Amino acid sequence: MISLNDRAHAVFRRLSDAADPLEVAVCELENGATVLDAGVEIAGSLEAGRLYSEVCLGGLADVQLRQLQLDDLTLPGVEVSVHQPVLACMASQYAGWAVNVPASDSSKKYFAMGSGPARVLHRGEPIFAEIDYRDPATVAVLTLESNRLPSPDVAAWVAGKCGVSPDRLFLLVAPTASIVGSVQVAARIVETGLHKMHEVDFDIGTVRSGFGSCPLAPVAADDLTAIGRTNDAVLYGGRAWYTVHTEDAQIERVIERLPSVASSDYGVPFGELFRRHGGDFYKIDPLLFSPAEIAITNSVSGRTFHAGGVNTSVLRASLFA
Amino acid sequence: MISLNDRAHAVFRRLSDAADPLEVAVCELENGATVLDAGVEIAGSLEAGRLYSEVCLGGLADVQLRQLQLDDLTLPGVEVSVHQPVLACMASQYAGWAVNVPASDSSKKYFAMGSGPARVLHRGEPIFAEIDYRDPATVAVLTLESNRLPSPDVAAWVAGKCGVSPDRLFLLVAPTASIVGSVQVAARIVETGLHKMHEVDFDIGTVRSGFGSCPLAPVAADDLTAIGRTNDAVLYGGRAWYTVHTEDAQIERVIERLPSVASSDYGVPFGELFRRHGGDFYKIDPLLFSPAEIAITNSVSGRTFHAGGVNTSVLRASLFA
Amino acid sequence: MISLNDRAHAVFRRLSDAADPLEVAVCELENGATVLDAGVEIAGSLEAGRLYSEVCLGGLADVQLRQLQLDDLTLPGVEVSVHQPVLACMASQYAGWAVNVPASDSSKKYFAMGSGPARVLHRGEPIFAEIDYRDPATVAVLTLESNRLPSPDVAAWVAGKCGVSPDRLFLLVAPTASIVGSVQVAARIVETGLHKMHEVDFDIGTVRSGFGSCPLAPVAADDLTAIGRTNDAVLYGGRAWYTVHTEDAQIERVIERLPSVASSDYGVPFGELFRRHGGDFYKIDPLLFSPAEIAITNSVSGRTFHAGGVNTSVLRASLFA
Repeated sequence: MISLNDRAHAVFRRLSDAADPLEVAVCELENGATVLDAGVEIAGSLEAGRLYSEVCLGGLADVQLRQLQLDDLTLPGVEVSVHQPVLACMASQYAGWAVNVPASDSSKKYFAMGSGPARVLHRGEPIFAEIDYRDPATVAVLTLESNRLPSPDVAAWVAGKCGVSPDRLFLLVAPTASIVGSVQVAARIVETGLHKMHEVDFDIGTVRSGFGSCPLAPVAADDLTAIGRTNDAVLYGGRAWYTVHTEDAQIERVIERLPSVASSDYGVPFGELFRRHGGDFYKIDPLLFSPAEIAITNSVSGRTFHAGGVNTSVLRASLFA
Repeated sequence: MISLNDRAHAVFRRLSDAADPLEVAVCELENGATVLDAGVEIAGSLEAGRLYSEVCLGGLADVQLRQLQLDDLTLPGVEVSVHQPVLACMASQYAGWAVNVPASDSSKKYFAMGSGPARVLHRGEPIFAEIDYRDPATVAVLTLESNRLPSPDVAAWVAGKCGVSPDRLFLLVAPTASIVGSVQVAARIVETGLHKMHEVDFDIGTVRSGFGSCPLAPVAADDLTAIGRTNDAVLYGGRAWYTVHTEDAQIERVIERLPSVASSDYGVPFGELFRRHGGDFYKIDPLLFSPAEIAITNSVSGRTFHAGGVNTSVLRASLFA
Repeated sequence: MISLNDRAHAVFRRLSDAADPLEVAVCELENGATVLDAGVEIAGSLEAGRLYSEVCLGGLADVQLRQLQLDDLTLPGVEVSVHQPVLACMASQYAGWAVNVPASDSSKKYFAMGSGPARVLHRGEPIFAEIDYRDPATVAVLTLESNRLPSPDVAAWVAGKCGVSPDRLFLLVAPTASIVGSVQVAARIVETGLHKMHEVDFDIGTVRSGFGSCPLAPVAADDLTAIGRTNDAVLYGGRAWYTVHTEDAQIERVIERLPSVASSDYGVPFGELFRRHGGDFYKIDPLLFSPAEIAITNSVSGRTFHAGGVNTSVLRASLFA
């Protein structure tokens, strides 16, 4: 029986055991919760970002730092090989938990996008109605995309949602605009494609393997710019390959809609799009969030379906603005 | 003293310890032999394929999943770094043991291509007359390219050939048409070049290091198509680099004959070739089985010899038919 | 508290534990010093070179063997991801210790370029005046680029300089013209860029991460040719990316001077340059020693600065002469 949280916790330990060399900081809050700072008050590192990403993926993936070739552009990036794609990506990595903690006597309102296997203990998102998996773990591991470290009250709130005592909670935090932030978003490349499949009603239970690559967004000066860049790295520079076991017709029905190019919002750097839509995230076409290029091999028919391609001109405009 | 079987067994354990996350299944047969199913009745995974390949190589190589660039084609593939090339590739990885077990009262005739270090315990192939190595191991590890799991009788037969009791035998099985099948054939890139050197009477004892890359064949619908694709991945997409210690004349004599392009059967997808030759494997030019591109550096002279090149047009025709 | 020597020693042990499979040899000298031969009287291997490089980097980096694409040239190479760049590269990896041991009654004069964390115990180079780091280790680990193994007298001399007893000293030796030699020089790509930044008075204390790639020089027939090739691999084929935290003006001031193309000696294969300058190393422009291509992202402004590019025509002329 696979425990996503136990597996993620094992990777967490490798990261926390190497805190000094990897430039992250670990502390225990007064209620016993453990917080690992991977970029808020400390620099972080590429290797910390690599392990942080493997935590997000519930310990069910291999993430590597790699030099990528995108047409005439050579950039550092990540390559991600995922086993158990639905568990790794949907039950764990997808940043679907909006951790929104009201202010208390002792701490201010806190907000962060939550990712990682603690989501499956919380089961607070609609997707979990479709995921027939229960984690037998007694620890909870959550990553928070934020430029603020969580207070004990925030940790207690998260622990409560997960049904564990605070001393069994392990939180990792990195801002979008940080070295770890760039790595952990790029490492979402296989998840982004899987999520898009789900959005267009493809049965993701048929997906047997996922492999992808995505360039690293250069660290931005502020989180808003970083959100733009890290998204653009996926949308215009990300590639994903899947092996599925289904009927060709199921793939043919969706393949052209899967890459980002299928969206009406395609082609404009994400930051600019955000401004055009008056800063309202929800006005951006949700179908935009996809890898630039997708290939799906059906192991039933042996046929491969392919759509999209990287776009180095938008990529340059966004990453090197 | 290196034990190929002990080293392979250590990698086997990493694979079997992670059976659930890596989507493989392990069982013990009634006679004590251990069978790991990596794709017959279970999906397998890329990471399982990576470790399976390292088992084939006797634990003397590093195999990694990588995105490869082949001219304008971007594909997932493997990169393989081999130490002790003769032991890793010829004594262990080469699929030279035709495991042909006659029917018994309790089981049907069984056939599979056997690869891995148990071959060196069996010593049933002519190549072993040239390999001055004895494995002190007391376990035997063999991989079977097959779509059928072996029965206890098959295991007992193999154990007998290796001179171990069945409870010291570890068998791994994956069909050609499977995720693990695609990975483990691609991971033969360095071995394929070394075997070809041997075929053209180059002294492979002079080879000091091997490194190579090969794209993954998309999983095919049936094993025959898979055999075609996985071979074509090597023949038209594989590259290998060797460092040898010899006289330049020895290399000059063979270099142009080493890549697949030197064969009269070059250029036709393997599956079609197979049909053209009336389904008779042995009518296919044995010198066809080679990497697309080979470079050899002679550390005595410092000169590098190079021949062949990838052929994306045949590759596309084969992999994406 | 990070101990570079303890970290390097842990990697040393992985290498020495696998001495037979990785084709290196370990022996204990009569005074208790440990010497690991990675290419003098034994072949070595790519994997040994990988670990040897991680030793040089004080255990603060991930080095991987990779296939690299340099325009139309496909070559094996390394990718290096460095944490704590100043400690890893300047305090440890930089080959700044000219180990020059006078002849004694029992041994001849010995010379080798010393690299690795023992340098920080010796503190014999001007750079250490700028590095506010003391290693609490009680072992000393040094790599020697040489085609001669050190005698007990050499080991005692090095141990004395490091303030450890000889039985706490671990020496690794590989000639430039060897498999390990090619790997360990290529793995200096991030260090070479950092050292160049330091040469042009850029504050390297602001550098937060480093990633780079460099092709492997094919093993040469002699060390002098090998010095030429391994340098050219860096100068014409090496790429490095850095994230720094500073003012843009500091980067703008130096960026065009950072890649090798900025040197007046650029464009001539290193070996030929050496001959042109009458075999006098010190007549070669010290600013030549740089990666071919450098990109620096400033995490304060989010801007990326880029200069240089790979040069496959000089690379071909040098590596395949």
